[in-house]
Amino acid sequence: MCRTETIGPVSFFAMLRRFGSARAALEALPRLARRGERSRTVAAVTRAEAEAELAALHRLGARLVCWGEPLYPNALAAIEDAPPLLTVIGEAELLGRPMVAVVGARNASASGRRFARDLAAGLGQAGIVVVSGLARGIDAAAHLGALASGTVAVLGGGIDVVYPEENRGLHEAMARQGAIVAELPPGTEPQARHFPRRNRIISGMAVGVVVVEAAARSGSLITARLALEQGRDVFAVPGSPLDPRCRGSNDLLRHGATLTENAEDVLSQLGPLVAGRAPPSPLPSLHSPPLPNWPAADNVDTVGDDAGIELILERLGPTAVAVDELVRQCHLSAAVVATLLLELELAGKVERHPGNLVSLR
Amino acid sequence: MCRTETIGPVSFFAMLRRFGSARAALEALPRLARRGERSRTVAAVTRAEAEAELAALHRLGARLVCWGEPLYPNALAAIEDAPPLLTVIGEAELLGRPMVAVVGARNASASGRRFARDLAAGLGQAGIVVVSGLARGIDAAAHLGALASGTVAVLGGGIDVVYPEENRGLHEAMARQGAIVAELPPGTEPQARHFPRRNRIISGMAVGVVVVEAAARSGSLITARLALEQGRDVFAVPGSPLDPRCRGSNDLLRHGATLTENAEDVLSQLGPLVAGRAPPSPLPSLHSPPLPNWPAADNVDTVGDDAGIELILERLGPTAVAVDELVRQCHLSAAVVATLLLELELAGKVERHPGNLVSLR
Repeated sequence: MCRTETIGPVSFFAMLRRFGSARAALEALPRLARRGERSRTVAAVTRAEAEAELAALHRLGARLVCWGEPLYPNALAAIEDAPPLLTVIGEAELLGRPMVAVVGARNASASGRRFARDLAAGLGQAGIVVVSGLARGIDAAAHLGALASGTVAVLGGGIDVVYPEENRGLHEAMARQGAIVAELPPGTEPQARHFPRRNRIISGMAVGVVVVEAAARSGSLITARLALEQGRDVFAVPGSPLDPRCRGSNDLLRHGATLTENAEDVLSQLGPLVAGRAPPSPLPSLHSPPLPNWPAADNVDTVGDDAGIELILERLGPTAVAVDELVRQCHLSAAVVATLLLELELAGKVERHPGNLVSLR
Repeated sequence: MCRTETIGPVSFFAMLRRFGSARAALEALPRLARRGERSRTVAAVTRAEAEAELAALHRLGARLVCWGEPLYPNALAAIEDAPPLLTVIGEAELLGRPMVAVVGARNASASGRRFARDLAAGLGQAGIVVVSGLARGIDAAAHLGALASGTVAVLGGGIDVVYPEENRGLHEAMARQGAIVAELPPGTEPQARHFPRRNRIISGMAVGVVVVEAAARSGSLITARLALEQGRDVFAVPGSPLDPRCRGSNDLLRHGATLTENAEDVLSQLGPLVAGRAPPSPLPSLHSPPLPNWPAADNVDTVGDDAGIELILERLGPTAVAVDELVRQCHLSAAVVATLLLELELAGKVERHPGNLVSLR
């Protein structure tokens, strides 16, 4: 079900709650989608396609870790758009340990990379698993620094797609000594729009996110914003105002990120969240599941509302807006808006974005 | 009176208030000092010595600016240990304009010096006078950057003593285009103990203090601490954690200093304090004059208290302590402690330090 084109993580869990099982949800799908847009049908993934993915994962030596399974990271499970499925290669046990994300610029300076590597090694010595995005620059340096102690890479594309090519050696080392995680199916080439989704997993797995050298309007700042929305601590490393690669990280400091000069600065701020090596319980500051309980399956058809769908579509455009704001503007209940958004998403008319945002597709 | 060995700025004003005039205070001096320590006499500066200093200042082309005179900086006048006299060479009118201090490491990096110079030029363009300490490194760069727009140097020694020698050219340029200020009489060689006193004048003149590259436990951090005690805004420029010259400035950021990447960051924080070129009125956040009103001169002898002097001396050592703390510990009124400290200071037994601290001499 979660491989079906228009079913994002929020809709996935909403449909499970609404229909009680994946089978019932899949059966209801064509009817629901027709309500959102009458001319379109939703092609659910077939059993054969799902089995082909499982076979591909098997060949790659990868496994599936589902939301709710013991190996699924607790902290990630608690975010509002938690991925229903993760594909994992390597030491999946690392996912059960407390993690800190270390992210930053791809075109990082030599000193930034050295700092990231030392920081990751220091966090590793304290029993922390370092999570990052296996990009050039800071990400690669962070993984290298923590390779011996434990590190997890989250990819934007499929788990078997090496990107960038220069990180092939590190990718292979991570598969042996660390762990690699991907939300999308094997073989998926990473595209620009995948990276914010990937970033929410990086911050979602972590109890804190450290940003080392980030330019203004960079992907690392998106990760930091997602981390804040997820209730994570955000750390930033100061840098010279004359270096544009530090513009974004300095800006985070200006807005309240914890100034970070070494691993101790991170550990002392996180305190009990990372004490010992025990897997963290869901964090107290996390969002509770964001969607209201759904009406039972037998009154599905009483919920739909063409007027409500029009209200929502009038207020949506290509720029993502907060669902909360939409609820306020439409003068509908949060439950009704959630139902209608689900139908619109299934119909391929709206798209969800990390941070509980939606836009027209 | 203020050139008399044991009369610091706090005692100077206390005695003026207590005796109503400098003449009456000077006449009372030997008697007061005997109360603090019976064996010692205080040598007041003679009329001839004072006239010799005036003649020396005249030869140097310097002038005296006294507390209460129109050219005396308003912001400085409001600090608790404002210097009674300033000697000034150059454009004394600069002292009436809003000032921002730019201070930092003597062994600054090339990029730190470039930053300080650009920052000072940017502040100058906004009509701000840049004040610093004419030291090597950041101080010199800040003066250079603001030479065209207006800059003031505050020296630790006498106004005619060039220190360090490498700044001779800048010293001469400042005397022509900017202004140089000193609290101590001409000819005084600067000593280590003079610099914290000098630093309180730098921060006291300014509405804000910007620290660019400061190592841990450096003089610039003393200036920042004094600035906080004086109710000034403190700004710090972020730098790489790998550079020990940024340890102190990053630490200021950690403790709430405003992160500063350019002049606009300073100007927008200071806002109305530096708007336009009008001289600032005394800042609302400044300490009100710290000493209580003294009893009138005719009951001077009823204030002294040998038991009180013993109480105070028992609680003082070579490490400076806060006068407020002393008041609490002695169970005496603030007015009585102030009187007894004045006698002890005149007797050369206690020494005052910036920040309303005292120690045994």
